[in-house]
Amino acid sequence: MTGAPRGVILGTVTHALPADVIAQIKAMDPAITPGQAQAVWALLTPFHEKLGCTAPRIDRDLTYGDHPRHRLDVHTGDQPRAAAPVVLFVHGGGFTGGDKHVPGTPRYDLVGAWAVRHGWVGVTMTYRLAPGYRWPAGAQDVAAAVGWIRENVAGYGGDPGKIVVAGNSAGAVHVASFVAGQGGGSLDGVRGAALLSGVYDLDPARRAGPEHAYYGDTPAAAASTLPGLLDCPVPLLFSVAERDPADFHAQAAAAVAAWLASHGTVPDLVWVEGHNHMSAVGSLGIDEAALGTPLARFIERSTGTEGSSA
Amino acid sequence: MTGAPRGVILGTVTHALPADVIAQIKAMDPAITPGQAQAVWALLTPFHEKLGCTAPRIDRDLTYGDHPRHRLDVHTGDQPRAAAPVVLFVHGGGFTGGDKHVPGTPRYDLVGAWAVRHGWVGVTMTYRLAPGYRWPAGAQDVAAAVGWIRENVAGYGGDPGKIVVAGNSAGAVHVASFVAGQGGGSLDGVRGAALLSGVYDLDPARRAGPEHAYYGDTPAAAASTLPGLLDCPVPLLFSVAERDPADFHAQAAAAVAAWLASHGTVPDLVWVEGHNHMSAVGSLGIDEAALGTPLARFIERSTGTEGSSA
Repeated sequence: MTGAPRGVILGTVTHALPADVIAQIKAMDPAITPGQAQAVWALLTPFHEKLGCTAPRIDRDLTYGDHPRHRLDVHTGDQPRAAAPVVLFVHGGGFTGGDKHVPGTPRYDLVGAWAVRHGWVGVTMTYRLAPGYRWPAGAQDVAAAVGWIRENVAGYGGDPGKIVVAGNSAGAVHVASFVAGQGGGSLDGVRGAALLSGVYDLDPARRAGPEHAYYGDTPAAAASTLPGLLDCPVPLLFSVAERDPADFHAQAAAAVAAWLASHGTVPDLVWVEGHNHMSAVGSLGIDEAALGTPLARFIERSTGTEGSSA
Repeated sequence: MTGAPRGVILGTVTHALPADVIAQIKAMDPAITPGQAQAVWALLTPFHEKLGCTAPRIDRDLTYGDHPRHRLDVHTGDQPRAAAPVVLFVHGGGFTGGDKHVPGTPRYDLVGAWAVRHGWVGVTMTYRLAPGYRWPAGAQDVAAAVGWIRENVAGYGGDPGKIVVAGNSAGAVHVASFVAGQGGGSLDGVRGAALLSGVYDLDPARRAGPEHAYYGDTPAAAASTLPGLLDCPVPLLFSVAERDPADFHAQAAAAVAAWLASHGTVPDLVWVEGHNHMSAVGSLGIDEAALGTPLARFIERSTGTEGSSA
């Protein structure tokens, strides 16, 4: 039996990085260094610039607290929306650095632009840094930013009841800490949390310099988020990049083992093909099959807006 | 700073199942029963029929061996191709049943159609069944079908050096067994293996009826594929469906733990959001973000044809 073709073209993801770019990323040492960051962004930035990595409107440096780093940017489109899902992005930087916006670069306006292209409101936030501010300051700041969103995002077309919080690296640690209840604040309206290349088992024996700066001597039982995540009422997505350093793979595997033991299933885990610690979040919008597609599906599913994406 | 929109629409996956269909699948008991199969295919078939789930040309029941079940179908497009990647699909059915083609249904022409839409040659195969044929007959049959492909697929526009083997459920077990070397045969030309909802740790204590029929009293040390998979030269993709039964989640987690211990990383694992044991492979072509997108990326990457997909 031979069926007639029906003229339907399979929907595919049109934004993918060329194979040689992925090959260059995969050839890099996985170690997280300034040199790695420089090399990754030198590769990715032209693609972001070509696609456009700034949303039509960005309201910058709105304050959600008293500290100079209690600031966030709201990314919206040129069409007014109502009750759109809201994606809050928490940057990485080893607890001691990083920013929501590095002028003249795609970091991290690209996440806001990605959210807006999907029809959502994007929010990028900055938080207090170690060693001046230690655990659980990061979680408290995420909680405060979420509180700001609940109170203010309707004015930007967002739905305060459809918030998804995504964090990368140290940002994932702060998001995990927030949804595990370490930072106080309310989970009202928080419908999902995406933990991108995060650390959940904070055994002091494995703390490197930046983690020590943030956690000091906080015991693992207080700092680790895994038990809280297992009981967390918010749906979670974990990710690890193919070329993340071994520690991050071990953390992802620990999450899988704990989840299986607690829930009898594997958690929603995205293995970000072809990318490393720096490039995984940088792939949003320019290499959608890697992280963007599963992350978007998670956001749609957890906010009950499947199929609404652009 | 507010950037101008650049008029680029994010590439998105256009074929997705409606939220209510996913909700119905997620509400089903995960247990693999005839009733589950009937309910799943009743839900999915209309979407396959609407999209078209038969390739323009299907050459059926070509023989790759002496047994009546040594048969395969070759799925190709209406445009001649040369040196296209070849996807061999091995169906499930609990070792004792199943077929490459159930007339009047999308099973499993849909996989061939999906491959052809991506620009590949699709091959669907049937193999000998337990209890008449026991371990490692399934792996031997996969090896024989791969041998047939190496010798014959160029005549269908396929590249005998770009073969990816994908199996589902018992089919994943046979594919794992083949690439782990249990069935003999050559891995020449095999560039990747996708193990969809498979079983890799064949501890006799956990064998249920169908596994007993195929493995008999074969000891775990001989039957289990995990050690062989860890050393396998072929890139692997593992998947588990969100609503797979607990045993399959445990198998995926075991693969993660073993891979971490051996390689220091998490393996390429796809968590098939919103689907169960039956619907995950059934999602190919009609719910691409679930399994199709990461599987297609794996096939492209492992055959070195990134960006060539339709």
